Amino acid sequence: MEKILVVGSGAIAGLYGGKLSQAGCKVDFLVRSEVELLRKCGFQINSVWGDFHFHPENVFGPSEDIDLDKYDFIFCCLKVLPEIRIKKILGREPSKNTALVLLQNGIGIEAPVSEDFPNSEIISGLAFVCANRLSPGVISHIDYGALNFGSWNRNDSPKSKRISELFSNVGVPTEYSDDIRSARWKKLMWNAPFNPLSVITGGCDTTRLLSDPVCKRMIFEIMQEVQMLGESFGAVFPENFIENLMDMSDKMKPYKTSMLLDFEAGRKMETEAILGNAVRMAKEKNLEIPRINTLYAILRFFP
Amino acid sequence: MEKILVVGSGAIAGLYGGKLSQAGCKVDFLVRSEVELLRKCGFQINSVWGDFHFHPENVFGPSEDIDLDKYDFIFCCLKVLPEIRIKKILGREPSKNTALVLLQNGIGIEAPVSEDFPNSEIISGLAFVCANRLSPGVISHIDYGALNFGSWNRNDSPKSKRISELFSNVGVPTEYSDDIRSARWKKLMWNAPFNPLSVITGGCDTTRLLSDPVCKRMIFEIMQEVQMLGESFGAVFPENFIENLMDMSDKMKPYKTSMLLDFEAGRKMETEAILGNAVRMAKEKNLEIPRINTLYAILRFFP
Repeated sequence: MEKILVVGSGAIAGLYGGKLSQAGCKVDFLVRSEVELLRKCGFQINSVWGDFHFHPENVFGPSEDIDLDKYDFIFCCLKVLPEIRIKKILGREPSKNTALVLLQNGIGIEAPVSEDFPNSEIISGLAFVCANRLSPGVISHIDYGALNFGSWNRNDSPKSKRISELFSNVGVPTEYSDDIRSARWKKLMWNAPFNPLSVITGGCDTTRLLSDPVCKRMIFEIMQEVQMLGESFGAVFPENFIENLMDMSDKMKPYKTSMLLDFEAGRKMETEAILGNAVRMAKEKNLEIPRINTLYAILRFFP
Repeated sequence: MEKILVVGSGAIAGLYGGKLSQAGCKVDFLVRSEVELLRKCGFQINSVWGDFHFHPENVFGPSEDIDLDKYDFIFCCLKVLPEIRIKKILGREPSKNTALVLLQNGIGIEAPVSEDFPNSEIISGLAFVCANRLSPGVISHIDYGALNFGSWNRNDSPKSKRISELFSNVGVPTEYSDDIRSARWKKLMWNAPFNPLSVITGGCDTTRLLSDPVCKRMIFEIMQEVQMLGESFGAVFPENFIENLMDMSDKMKPYKTSMLLDFEAGRKMETEAILGNAVRMAKEKNLEIPRINTLYAILRFFP
């Protein structure tokens, strides 16, 4: 069975690490803090898929020497912040049989990692999930939970398929994608308007943002900017994708975005991964994304 | 000497009504509240131009019958809010010898008034001033104070010139403008970025906004949107106007915008006069002002 190292101890790390453990994998964790607590008590996952408890084989702290090469996959489940570099956390590049899975938010996040790990397969992963860390080792999974995996730097990727299979085996709706780049742009299309607007407007959920016709129109136009930018990087969107995404958002229960939850909890937000990278990529292509630029300029004043 | 009715009792009404009284005009006030107090105590103006006290001849309350025709000028010094209509406050149109002076913020604010008063001369006025109402009848004038007047609907305007002269006589730096439309767009060019950004960013003064390079660039681009929109309505800007305005803003002491002061004090903001009207005027001309649109969409969630 697969050996997996999960880096992180937040909601994504706990929930999906737990599901991999249910799938029979040997799952270790590398965490920044609360090493002793997690070693002793493991993780308690309260999930809409059924509550469960699991105990990782090993929980490593930051300074420990880990034999990276024995892992089939290293799951990077860290928040995407400019000061966090997975290379620095791992200390070195693992053998080329170990794939690095980035189960993270944002756009343009794979490029710096594949520069740091030139010999590794980088698997890009997307989680569509509502989950929170209630306290160290205690995760609450409230809704959704689908995953999407695809290789960033390999044409055919048995490893991405295997990961998708492992999750599917334990009931996690998981898709393997041979165009994960487009999938990332599609997710950004939702995140780029809703995440920053929810914070900047003083804490509005999705329903409240969509209830104002001027703001609803703005959300639509921001999605158009994402589509134009994504297409300039080769992303492909199905016909009426924006219209369908707006419909879907209209039908969602009032939803607080991850950025808003971070902001309200006084945690750092993924501003650079979600907006800053898009702004820089637009500059690279000499494209105008004025609405996203405006949101980014404003969000820089939010700590 | 001129007879003047000032409508309003805020900082602008008190300060400039007081200066007109110093200029020898007979100044009456029409106010919404605190009628008795203002009748009894008049206005105390603490000003960088020298403190002074003055007592209006008459202070009228909302329901009183006023002989409008005897006034040479009616100064409208009210905040520009959709629910406030000067026609409704005055009850009727005065004789055509009475000019209506709008000493107010925003763009596109004269058109509805000149519809309501088809026979009156409408004089458009701009105040570049830092002043606050500390309590009923007590005004604090902290800095600046220049005025600019021009007729909205007359080609040659002796009345605008006379008003400028009256203020100049008592030391208020006042300009008569035969292109007051351009002057309004020039003022909007500063207000459109700084006012909303100061509120949306969580209370930043001008220095703080300009200290972030991304935000500074955004301010520049918003000014470009104002210039393009203004030009489509016939406004003329001198060469390098934006560059000079940015320089001037850089050199200003840290300044809290009027919109931010309103917001922090829990008062309504002039969102529609400053942004909403610009958005609607752009739509009318089929022009894109995406950055201003974004600020407007966000500001609608600020009460």
